[in-house]
Amino acid sequence: MKQTILHIKYLWRWDHNRIHATDVLHGVYYLTTQPIPGFTQVNTSDMFSRNGSSSESDNENVDKINFTHRANSFVAEDSYGIMGGNLSALELMALYTAAAMHDYDHPGRTNAFLVATNAAQAVLYNDRAVLENYHAAAAWQLFLSHSKYNFLSGLDQSEFKRFRFLVIENILATDLKRHFEILAEFNAKVNDDDAPGVDWTVETDRLLVMEMVIKIADINGPAKTGTLHRQWTDRISEEFYEQGDEEQRLGMPISPYMDRKNKQLAKLQETFINHLVAPLCNAMVTGGLLPGTWVEEPDSDVDAGSVHSDTDNKLDGPFKGDTEDENETDQEPGSPVHNKIEKKSRKVNCILTKNMKENYEWWVAVIQEEEKQKAACAAVVTSAAENNGAPLQETDKGEMEPIKEETESFGSTNSSPGTPTKVKDETNKPRTETAV
Amino acid sequence: MKQTILHIKYLWRWDHNRIHATDVLHGVYYLTTQPIPGFTQVNTSDMFSRNGSSSESDNENVDKINFTHRANSFVAEDSYGIMGGNLSALELMALYTAAAMHDYDHPGRTNAFLVATNAAQAVLYNDRAVLENYHAAAAWQLFLSHSKYNFLSGLDQSEFKRFRFLVIENILATDLKRHFEILAEFNAKVNDDDAPGVDWTVETDRLLVMEMVIKIADINGPAKTGTLHRQWTDRISEEFYEQGDEEQRLGMPISPYMDRKNKQLAKLQETFINHLVAPLCNAMVTGGLLPGTWVEEPDSDVDAGSVHSDTDNKLDGPFKGDTEDENETDQEPGSPVHNKIEKKSRKVNCILTKNMKENYEWWVAVIQEEEKQKAACAAVVTSAAENNGAPLQETDKGEMEPIKEETESFGSTNSSPGTPTKVKDETNKPRTETAV
Repeated sequence: MKQTILHIKYLWRWDHNRIHATDVLHGVYYLTTQPIPGFTQVNTSDMFSRNGSSSESDNENVDKINFTHRANSFVAEDSYGIMGGNLSALELMALYTAAAMHDYDHPGRTNAFLVATNAAQAVLYNDRAVLENYHAAAAWQLFLSHSKYNFLSGLDQSEFKRFRFLVIENILATDLKRHFEILAEFNAKVNDDDAPGVDWTVETDRLLVMEMVIKIADINGPAKTGTLHRQWTDRISEEFYEQGDEEQRLGMPISPYMDRKNKQLAKLQETFINHLVAPLCNAMVTGGLLPGTWVEEPDSDVDAGSVHSDTDNKLDGPFKGDTEDENETDQEPGSPVHNKIEKKSRKVNCILTKNMKENYEWWVAVIQEEEKQKAACAAVVTSAAENNGAPLQETDKGEMEPIKEETESFGSTNSSPGTPTKVKDETNKPRTETAV
Repeated sequence: MKQTILHIKYLWRWDHNRIHATDVLHGVYYLTTQPIPGFTQVNTSDMFSRNGSSSESDNENVDKINFTHRANSFVAEDSYGIMGGNLSALELMALYTAAAMHDYDHPGRTNAFLVATNAAQAVLYNDRAVLENYHAAAAWQLFLSHSKYNFLSGLDQSEFKRFRFLVIENILATDLKRHFEILAEFNAKVNDDDAPGVDWTVETDRLLVMEMVIKIADINGPAKTGTLHRQWTDRISEEFYEQGDEEQRLGMPISPYMDRKNKQLAKLQETFINHLVAPLCNAMVTGGLLPGTWVEEPDSDVDAGSVHSDTDNKLDGPFKGDTEDENETDQEPGSPVHNKIEKKSRKVNCILTKNMKENYEWWVAVIQEEEKQKAACAAVVTSAAENNGAPLQETDKGEMEPIKEETESFGSTNSSPGTPTKVKDETNKPRTETAV
């Protein structure tokens, strides 16, 4: 795959650079090749035509060659499965290509900024999914600009057409404006009370799962270990501050979290995890679609998988009954519908949600520490003012800044994945849509 | 309004040229300024802020100036109203501007062709609403390219933002790929059994009606008198044939109705009216949103307005009861909700649906004449072949062509708006969603 050519215009940005593209590519690879507890790989020998379509009527003349990708590096046990086994090779290749393309030639500014400034790209895309449309189009323009970039010469016309469609759909799914729409669609399909589950024989169901996969990979920072997470946090915040600098130069209001004179890194991350990343990961783990391991210890009754489910996320839990046996009560054996994991099923360890929970608690502790120091500082200032009989000056308020910065650097230099202070307050824990 | 500058790139195309842009502008003006039987103009003195938004929370600091456009050229009687009276001046200006911009720099090819050939515009817009995105963006690029084109200097920032949004939404609504989606949304809002009706105080309701208005104006050819309709038919078909020529040159299959060696003009128009134009116009006339006149004659019981409703569309009908009285049974007096016209209300004459019905019947008669002549020709050829004992040759089949072309020229030279043969077959009449 000629994705290296994409490096031409993955220019250096603090966050949206070629390392991010590689990271997202790694993320979608991880999610589609690593074993998922209780995941059922359907018999796909006749499921896919070469172009990855399961609609026979559309492909009557295409040989029904089994082109299903299987991650041969992992021999699944009975109680594990691999998501890639339920996707066609064309779909997997499209997903991986989309990951590599998805932020191509990113300008280091947000859609909102481009729209507000009537930037050329915003005008070009009529203020709609400006960056996502641009990344996809620019990468495809590069692909089509010279025959030497064509790594798809092995595909026939219908395969190319479907590949291109899937790549574009997956890239456009990374537009965070569509976050709640896609999440709601996924939950209605997989997690809600009357959800039918993913039917892996249906193209649109598989596409919906792929969209969730690339979305998680795109915002996976909080699902990394603490050190890595905080490195990426520093990168995105520096990119944000550069936008804030430009907003200030242009006489615009500085966007939230983008003012380097009023950094709110911990609050940014706490909000980001709570409202975006955690609901996404929890929906996938609840749906039984995130890699992990079965918990071996019996006789515990805590929920598992979702971030809020227990205190240390070691996810110990009882064998409430064999998951596959329970599934058999809901569906015919061999059914292509992958039901969500039953609420009373065996518990799983999931490294992604474990990391996310720890990172979340880290930021909550930082916020609490910040507030404590702010209060202490305010008390000192007030006391000093009372002693001097002088009113509070702007410069007095300014003295709080170093305290904030101290807590931020404290946050970014501590390499422990744990939290400096254990947080027990349930209200601070990330919201979850459904418990496993 | 500097729309004349748009002429720079309304290049000469057979159909999608500056005359079409002017025609659509005329269409939206007609639909929003001409009296509509039974239409209730709500009291809008406090309804709109200057930027056309009715959401007070968004515009607390904007003076509530009544900026409502009223078509002063028409003094409405009690039983008529004007749609423009329920839209803000900003919305009307956006609708008219969208009409002028909506096909800017049209290449005379369809979206499907651009996508199939990987045209630069298709790559740029990721195969999605390629032309509509391009028309909007290219026209806005022109607008922003020089301060002398800025006819919006009187708008403040929030007004400009909303104006730009409305123009783009209206242009993108002309993508026929969204035809059934928009029509279904409108019927659910206005015509279905439990439809709530248009709430003119709600921005999204007003936008939906504007989208219907520009859609009708965009495909209004069959709602013109017969002579004009057939002129536009000749134009679009010539544009289609040029695409067909290019498809042939490129070795592609020629798209339906685009092969000049196998013209199917009558079938194209019959299908176009039946499946696209008639359901659109019928939905609007059923919803009481098309200009027309009350029928004066009492004591008749035929349906009116929709194309299939009576045989000559003279729409005679009884006064089943005063519409406004009936409305009062369903809503509070002065309610901003514009209910659809009751099914048993007075009947209306609508010139648009009257023309459409006549044009439809014209094409059906042409098709029947073509088939009759084909059958006669086939009988002659078969008889000749039997007499000669020779098998049918390709050249024999070719002899049918002149007959088709004869019926087509017959169709296009007859300037009567009526049909050459009265068609009584109900099954040939345009489908309608709901009867008035």
